[in-house]
Amino acid sequence: MIKAAIVGGTGYTGVELLRLLANHPDVELKVITSRSEAGTAVADMFPNLRGQVDLKFSEPDPAKLAECDVAFYATPHGVAMEGARALLEAGVRVVDLGADFRIQDIPVWEQWYGMSHTTPDLVKEAVYGLPEVNRDAIKDARLIACPGCYPTATQLGYLPLIENGLIDSRRLIVDAKSGVSGAGRKASVGTLMCEASESMKAYAVPGHRHQPEISERLSLVAGHKVGLTFVPHLTPMIRGIHATLYSTITGDVGDLQTLYEERYADEPFVDVMQPGSHPETRSVKGGNVCRIAIHRPQGGDTLVVLSVIDNLVKGASGQAIQNMNLMFGLNERAGLNIVPLMP
Amino acid sequence: MIKAAIVGGTGYTGVELLRLLANHPDVELKVITSRSEAGTAVADMFPNLRGQVDLKFSEPDPAKLAECDVAFYATPHGVAMEGARALLEAGVRVVDLGADFRIQDIPVWEQWYGMSHTTPDLVKEAVYGLPEVNRDAIKDARLIACPGCYPTATQLGYLPLIENGLIDSRRLIVDAKSGVSGAGRKASVGTLMCEASESMKAYAVPGHRHQPEISERLSLVAGHKVGLTFVPHLTPMIRGIHATLYSTITGDVGDLQTLYEERYADEPFVDVMQPGSHPETRSVKGGNVCRIAIHRPQGGDTLVVLSVIDNLVKGASGQAIQNMNLMFGLNERAGLNIVPLMP
Amino acid sequence: MIKAAIVGGTGYTGVELLRLLANHPDVELKVITSRSEAGTAVADMFPNLRGQVDLKFSEPDPAKLAECDVAFYATPHGVAMEGARALLEAGVRVVDLGADFRIQDIPVWEQWYGMSHTTPDLVKEAVYGLPEVNRDAIKDARLIACPGCYPTATQLGYLPLIENGLIDSRRLIVDAKSGVSGAGRKASVGTLMCEASESMKAYAVPGHRHQPEISERLSLVAGHKVGLTFVPHLTPMIRGIHATLYSTITGDVGDLQTLYEERYADEPFVDVMQPGSHPETRSVKGGNVCRIAIHRPQGGDTLVVLSVIDNLVKGASGQAIQNMNLMFGLNERAGLNIVPLMP
Amino acid sequence: MIKAAIVGGTGYTGVELLRLLANHPDVELKVITSRSEAGTAVADMFPNLRGQVDLKFSEPDPAKLAECDVAFYATPHGVAMEGARALLEAGVRVVDLGADFRIQDIPVWEQWYGMSHTTPDLVKEAVYGLPEVNRDAIKDARLIACPGCYPTATQLGYLPLIENGLIDSRRLIVDAKSGVSGAGRKASVGTLMCEASESMKAYAVPGHRHQPEISERLSLVAGHKVGLTFVPHLTPMIRGIHATLYSTITGDVGDLQTLYEERYADEPFVDVMQPGSHPETRSVKGGNVCRIAIHRPQGGDTLVVLSVIDNLVKGASGQAIQNMNLMFGLNERAGLNIVPLMP
Repeated sequence: MIKAAIVGGTGYTGVELLRLLANHPDVELKVITSRSEAGTAVADMFPNLRGQVDLKFSEPDPAKLAECDVAFYATPHGVAMEGARALLEAGVRVVDLGADFRIQDIPVWEQWYGMSHTTPDLVKEAVYGLPEVNRDAIKDARLIACPGCYPTATQLGYLPLIENGLIDSRRLIVDAKSGVSGAGRKASVGTLMCEASESMKAYAVPGHRHQPEISERLSLVAGHKVGLTFVPHLTPMIRGIHATLYSTITGDVGDLQTLYEERYADEPFVDVMQPGSHPETRSVKGGNVCRIAIHRPQGGDTLVVLSVIDNLVKGASGQAIQNMNLMFGLNERAGLNIVPLMP
Repeated sequence: MIKAAIVGGTGYTGVELLRLLANHPDVELKVITSRSEAGTAVADMFPNLRGQVDLKFSEPDPAKLAECDVAFYATPHGVAMEGARALLEAGVRVVDLGADFRIQDIPVWEQWYGMSHTTPDLVKEAVYGLPEVNRDAIKDARLIACPGCYPTATQLGYLPLIENGLIDSRRLIVDAKSGVSGAGRKASVGTLMCEASESMKAYAVPGHRHQPEISERLSLVAGHKVGLTFVPHLTPMIRGIHATLYSTITGDVGDLQTLYEERYADEPFVDVMQPGSHPETRSVKGGNVCRIAIHRPQGGDTLVVLSVIDNLVKGASGQAIQNMNLMFGLNERAGLNIVPLMP
Repeated sequence: MIKAAIVGGTGYTGVELLRLLANHPDVELKVITSRSEAGTAVADMFPNLRGQVDLKFSEPDPAKLAECDVAFYATPHGVAMEGARALLEAGVRVVDLGADFRIQDIPVWEQWYGMSHTTPDLVKEAVYGLPEVNRDAIKDARLIACPGCYPTATQLGYLPLIENGLIDSRRLIVDAKSGVSGAGRKASVGTLMCEASESMKAYAVPGHRHQPEISERLSLVAGHKVGLTFVPHLTPMIRGIHATLYSTITGDVGDLQTLYEERYADEPFVDVMQPGSHPETRSVKGGNVCRIAIHRPQGGDTLVVLSVIDNLVKGASGQAIQNMNLMFGLNERAGLNIVPLMP
Repeated sequence: MIKAAIVGGTGYTGVELLRLLANHPDVELKVITSRSEAGTAVADMFPNLRGQVDLKFSEPDPAKLAECDVAFYATPHGVAMEGARALLEAGVRVVDLGADFRIQDIPVWEQWYGMSHTTPDLVKEAVYGLPEVNRDAIKDARLIACPGCYPTATQLGYLPLIENGLIDSRRLIVDAKSGVSGAGRKASVGTLMCEASESMKAYAVPGHRHQPEISERLSLVAGHKVGLTFVPHLTPMIRGIHATLYSTITGDVGDLQTLYEERYADEPFVDVMQPGSHPETRSVKGGNVCRIAIHRPQGGDTLVVLSVIDNLVKGASGQAIQNMNLMFGLNERAGLNIVPLMP
């Protein structure tokens, strides 16, 4: 059994890791830390876990963490970069669900996240944990930077087009819609039910932190710097991301449906839907899967790719476990064979 | 592997059976019938099942059903009573999620369900599938009448009080709140999102079919006819029942918390919460569990028991599988060890 | 034109006063105070008011308030009792939407609100602003204590029964369901959309501040101390209260429908619905009305009264304006002739 | 007083007309027709109207309609084109909230709406009821084609850019999100609360009827055929449209904020928000207003315009009344001076 720790377990990605690890056949959860909740039983804070998780939050203790095989950081940015080195040196694999190691370009990271990066060498070492692109590197990695939620849905949607140079990658437009859980479990007026339900709005149109992450990663795939307009929207639902991806073809693109199906034929967690489909976010609620449909409205030169994930699963905690499975040579599906909850 | 069939699989209890059986370690789903959708792939109708269930709806075919070990009826009332006998005679166990065998008093059933009952002898044979009351009888049963959703939450909440004669059972008041999925997956104006969301209303106050069911069952426990006012409410959420149970004590009731904890100590799917708790329906969303809290406001003689379930799981499909597990000598928890989805 | 001030206008009752006063034909809003938002344009905080309200929040300034004819306190408890006397002495009428003057029994108030009351004499003077009971006193009042939201729905539902001594008033049971706006516009984890939507729960079952308020008022009506179990529930919707009121008849009650219709025949804001009705909270959304239906399930001795209001309108800001209309001799309906928004 | 009729009043645009006309100072509602509900009191079907509208649905009767000054068609397409001529000949002004007269290109209309158009001459006569473009023509019109909901939000957002030739109008991308009320008040599985809430999906990506309408209208403005990709999404809320409009600038565009502010300076129902704003659909809920914000992310050449309306008000019934006000020489704001409901 792999011994696992969660650092910072009181947010939504934390409780989602708990849900998924509680039934993982190869993992034993040993430690979950929280400064503010140390001593509280996890199941008292998250009653869905009553009878399933019998653990208390504890103060972060480097010695205890060092006894684990893997540590998940479910923390705000800035925390993992402080703690990761000691764990790595103690032989603990680290999977960061936060943003600390997602962007290779350190000045860009520092600009968007508003702080100095203290461990640039670890950024260099970190493997970007999108298995559909980096599976082999993940298997050998000590340190994983889990992709952001929007970047996961966006990259999986665009990859086949950009890998094959079929679209004008200087003019990508990503119109993304996220459920409110993406804003995290912290007291704030803006995500109160009275403020966020029964309404839709765009936010961060002038600039969002996931834009440079997507941009850097797709540029690596394209072989040149892509141009990307990214507009996120707050949607009145708890879970789910719906990314609507626009692009312009540059020539004959052939059979896109087949292209996508072949690209993802061996991927356990990417589902290319039938032609004409409109994936719903609820079809992935609670499951570690990205469903994709490809449209070319009226045969024109604008493509529309629809890509949906559960932001807390394939967009965060599920993907983190998928990465862990790969790092430890487990079945990639272990603990992730979940049927989404519908209705 | 137990070979299972679902009769009438296009409603919400049907898709929920599919979700739960897809990961059941001891069951192989062989047949799912639907007259209207025969030929359609299940995963085309319910895309959450893509990659998990590879089966098509088929016309109901007695011969094919007879090859199974167990058949679940997820049908409107009136269907199971027509089909059950042939299956039972063919050696198939039958678990009815509908109402056909729930009420022993045939005239009462006929009055509330508006039709003649064609198989009263089967009603007599049927075991009422509330394992917390009838576990032994269920193990030996050929035919199970799964309790209604409201009756499940209500009975589990009242049982310890009534079994011990602690309350005035002639004046029970059940104020129950249900999510909209209780109304089923059929086109109707009243459960459109624009009609049912952002609103709360009582319904069927003059009389609801679950009232005689609860009444008959609690009367059996009490040893005399109970008096029960039952007021259901339509609540703007998809899943969940919250039953608020009022009663008046008739004397010294002792330590109710201990009473409840001892009553349910060995029950795998009943969770007696700590004193002072307020169970939320979301804490059971997707899970086969009933969470209960007992209150005696300001030490008065009115008791308030709070009892929550997911109407589609412990209130329907999960309980059906729990019954099946018992009938076939499986681990009662098999396939039901699900962590509720929160948030 | 009546010159009006709002003290503490950044909460939901504040913005609702703004919405209603913006179109009131006889009122000019002169001042709206907020310590934290002084200098901010009201329409910047509440964009629904853009183009309708051209006012900025200002620091509370006694001199400016004293120039008004009426001041609405839309503040947490403890604020109005500090400020009211000076305003009253300056000839300003005061309408408190908070709890400071609602309960005549000072020790009871102090126990439930956790502070000493500094102006018990004003409590004595204050008129409880339920026009359906106190219309004449309101007309002459200088100081109004607006009822709480739950107490409004509850009292209007019970009044005809208790006024006529038809029920056992020692065993009243109020099962009340409120939308989340009742919890106010303050950052808190419990009312985040991810926590409060798609779930139902009871809260404060051991004791809620509106219990003593209802109890005191209904006791006045009954002529003796009533016994009341009050269980509020948090419901996943923004606006609305649905009170389900249980009681036991003590003898022949006659024609209850007629009783209610006659009791409220001249009330502009109470709507007795047809026999058999189930009022929906959405039918009063945004409107200053209480809709009521009376049921006697299966002719038994338990009565069920259903009473719905919009907690922010008839349960707060609308009722406050109704009181103001009465105090200033205006048409009671002025500014309140609003059609609820449906769907 | 203007005598008004509503033809087909049982849908959401019908009840919204009723809400708005109930308080219109210059209109008396005389007739509301419905074949299926003839004889039913309007307030029995829509209890929000109890006490406000005292009218029954009646069979459509040409003679009675002919006695009115104006008739609103709140019907599915195909109805108004059959009834309009007789009314016009009787001197009744006709405002069609449906699609029958929206598209001048008859073959295009017939292709998208799947039927033959029986009154092409009336299409020619009809004035497209977007006051911000056609105010003068509306004043003189006998027959108004009210714009669709998406087309309203989209055109108001794009107009200043296209009128001034600032963008590449061959590559417009409209990503639009609509609340569920856009689908109407008819029994259907897809818009049940259990299907449509807690989920987001695109629909009709291969082609939607509002695409040719927008395209034809914007082409008129541009002076050449525009190219438009239009992707609508079903959003889990009741009311509201959020249109996110993408375009590429073709040169120096100057100060866009000023451009928009000047373009709409005299418009009573278009609100250009401050730079950097993100309009929320809830800020227009129930109100006849379109709020717009203009963004140029990171100074690039892609513009993002955010445009929100209430689909039932500025997107349908409110705009219909605005048109009526213009046709009859009333104050354009009459009956429409509504503060949106927030929260």
